[in-house]
Amino acid sequence: MRMVDLIEKKRDGGSLSKEEIEFIVSGYTDGSIPDYQMSAFLMSTFFQDMSDEEITHLTLAMAHSGDMIDLASIDGVKVDKHSTGGVGDTTTIVLAPLVAAVGVPVAKMSGRGLGHTGGTIDKLESIPNFKVEIPSDDFIRLVNDTKVAVTGQSADLAPADKKMYALRDVTATVNSIPLIASSIMSKKIASGADAIVLDVTTGDGAFMKNIDDAKRLAHTMVRIGKLAGRQTMAVISNMSEPLGNAIGNSLEVIEAIEMLKGTGPKDLEELVYTLGSQMVVLAKKAETLEEARALLEEALHSGKALDKFREMIINQGGDPSVIDDYTKFGEAKYVYEVPAKQAGFVSDIQAESIGVAAMMLGAGRKTKEESIDYTVGLILNKKVGAEVTEGDSLVTVYSNTENVEEVIQKIYDSITIGDSAEEPKLIHGIVTE
Amino acid sequence: MRMVDLIEKKRDGGSLSKEEIEFIVSGYTDGSIPDYQMSAFLMSTFFQDMSDEEITHLTLAMAHSGDMIDLASIDGVKVDKHSTGGVGDTTTIVLAPLVAAVGVPVAKMSGRGLGHTGGTIDKLESIPNFKVEIPSDDFIRLVNDTKVAVTGQSADLAPADKKMYALRDVTATVNSIPLIASSIMSKKIASGADAIVLDVTTGDGAFMKNIDDAKRLAHTMVRIGKLAGRQTMAVISNMSEPLGNAIGNSLEVIEAIEMLKGTGPKDLEELVYTLGSQMVVLAKKAETLEEARALLEEALHSGKALDKFREMIINQGGDPSVIDDYTKFGEAKYVYEVPAKQAGFVSDIQAESIGVAAMMLGAGRKTKEESIDYTVGLILNKKVGAEVTEGDSLVTVYSNTENVEEVIQKIYDSITIGDSAEEPKLIHGIVTE
Repeated sequence: MRMVDLIEKKRDGGSLSKEEIEFIVSGYTDGSIPDYQMSAFLMSTFFQDMSDEEITHLTLAMAHSGDMIDLASIDGVKVDKHSTGGVGDTTTIVLAPLVAAVGVPVAKMSGRGLGHTGGTIDKLESIPNFKVEIPSDDFIRLVNDTKVAVTGQSADLAPADKKMYALRDVTATVNSIPLIASSIMSKKIASGADAIVLDVTTGDGAFMKNIDDAKRLAHTMVRIGKLAGRQTMAVISNMSEPLGNAIGNSLEVIEAIEMLKGTGPKDLEELVYTLGSQMVVLAKKAETLEEARALLEEALHSGKALDKFREMIINQGGDPSVIDDYTKFGEAKYVYEVPAKQAGFVSDIQAESIGVAAMMLGAGRKTKEESIDYTVGLILNKKVGAEVTEGDSLVTVYSNTENVEEVIQKIYDSITIGDSAEEPKLIHGIVTE
Repeated sequence: MRMVDLIEKKRDGGSLSKEEIEFIVSGYTDGSIPDYQMSAFLMSTFFQDMSDEEITHLTLAMAHSGDMIDLASIDGVKVDKHSTGGVGDTTTIVLAPLVAAVGVPVAKMSGRGLGHTGGTIDKLESIPNFKVEIPSDDFIRLVNDTKVAVTGQSADLAPADKKMYALRDVTATVNSIPLIASSIMSKKIASGADAIVLDVTTGDGAFMKNIDDAKRLAHTMVRIGKLAGRQTMAVISNMSEPLGNAIGNSLEVIEAIEMLKGTGPKDLEELVYTLGSQMVVLAKKAETLEEARALLEEALHSGKALDKFREMIINQGGDPSVIDDYTKFGEAKYVYEVPAKQAGFVSDIQAESIGVAAMMLGAGRKTKEESIDYTVGLILNKKVGAEVTEGDSLVTVYSNTENVEEVIQKIYDSITIGDSAEEPKLIHGIVTE
């Protein structure tokens, strides 16, 4: 088999066999296929797409390129949840203790943030002493004993994906549905969950800028999940404005705690219940979505979910007193308000641009090497649809640098105030096939 | 400027500016742009094509990546001729002395053969002691004094093309009209001719398998030649069967000599006159194609063209006695006939496949490193349209190895004998804009 012939086959619209795809993935992982052939192949794929069968073969080959996590020793149906990325997305930190509180085992592997999107692992690290590197035996024991643990991804989880993603990033081949789908699903499948709930975000702050692309990505991932023998479903959610009000690491954890206390923002609550109900049903802890939601509401309002989060923090070495005293997270030196320059209705908050503003404060990293300032970030005081009068604070800025002029300009550039506005639709659909 | 943004721009169908294209070509030549980004860009170009302006910028940037040959010190209009490649194509060896004999200065840089296609430089080297490496001062003096010299390409002629071609070869990006056109034209423009006559071959043995593609390539090259300030025209010729009867290095030189003696094969003669007339008109040695052809016929029939070839051989250190005694070329040890297995008409001779058969004998190289056996090759005794009776020799094989079974099988596989057949059309069109 010669790589140049496989590039040509894909270039001319052909379908690659399982053997051909495995040849490509293993050859690229072991270095026998050079970057320049892989990038030509990825660009051919960008233009010619792949069938569900091809994407499944690609996903499985990528998953098997490194460690395959075995969660068989954990009792029950292990359900994983994955978001395709957004700004201010705190759902995992709420969902992990919440669904664990109703008996669903949550063995969650999460990633770090890059660019305008945050990462669950970074957010959890804003809790003093919280450990995200857990030896795999401890991880499995924790989930068996307490139903929940959240860890960083193992270095050798889908190394083919890691190498391919780095190449895609510099060759303009990121935005390809078969490549996005296989990248996400290879890591999910290697992580060992029995069932997968996907939150496919759409809009300005997401990978998928429009709903049609988000639907196609969702259908693709659900189909390959099923072809790979994992129960999979997807929720398509809005990420044209940020989710919730907080953007920034400790700010988002505080928002998650508020949510677990029953006082979280409405959109975050809605998404948490939507995703959580699906997880509970897939884990066979409820027959219907309604029944699942009732269980989750009970766990939340009774305080069980918050207790579970406290337990999770203790289990992973963190300081649980942050739950009762937010100053334990440490505080940003400077707090500024960003007042509305005119009256009207907030008609748009560009999620990506607001995410970049938070990154400029130090809440995110431009490159993988940069470090994060956990205490900085933004609180959106007015979301899309809200009425404002001149001088109302649109955003509160938490900063450790005094001069935030550029950030405030970026915030103004990101927010549009018009004559009227409606609250955006949060859930665009549920994809089960 | 970032390469990844330029890849994305081309990927999304955008047009690149002169500065952007120069950034790509100079960056790739000096190594600051890596192979993996270049191959993604080339694949984007394969899918999204380029405008004539883009191809012209690309061609000129590639031409200027190395030496620009200055032929200004040669008197008269310097006309170059280039074929897009074929099997048994001896036209350059006939045309160089022929048009020189009517006063057109021929400062010809030619290449070597690879795969199933031969190269003029290899063929000329089959003449004992003939030198194809001529210092550039000597080259210019020879053309000024005697109107003709043929040399190998300078190592630093369009190095960007050399590097890009090597990459295209292993990334399935060879068959792209903007890339083929810029590759050919960059070398022609760097070679310094005032006017360029292109022989765009089409059919089985050519790069362009069908006439529409050949026409598009021809129009593209003619337009970029003109945009680059060189008078350019193209002849679209048939390469579904090999040109002439001889395939193999000394065999083709012998055929060229026969042609200069007035006894060459009819198709070769026709193509030589068609291309030669265009060259003579572009060089302003005749007003019309008819007048040009009359000059060429006179030069041929009077023996002046053959004298010019003799002079050229002497000038370049070769043994001119080969013209009168073909055994001076050296002879192949074994000669075999390939008899027709049935009566009928030759309806197809697959040029590429016959070219491969000759290569198998040692007449060509599979890789750049292989050496060539000048004396071996094939003579086609029956061309497409010829009537044959059973046992007639279709092909004569000249070999230095006794066992040629595989070659003979390949020859039989390449030739179809049917109930009827027509002589193929040799010239499919002339492209001047």
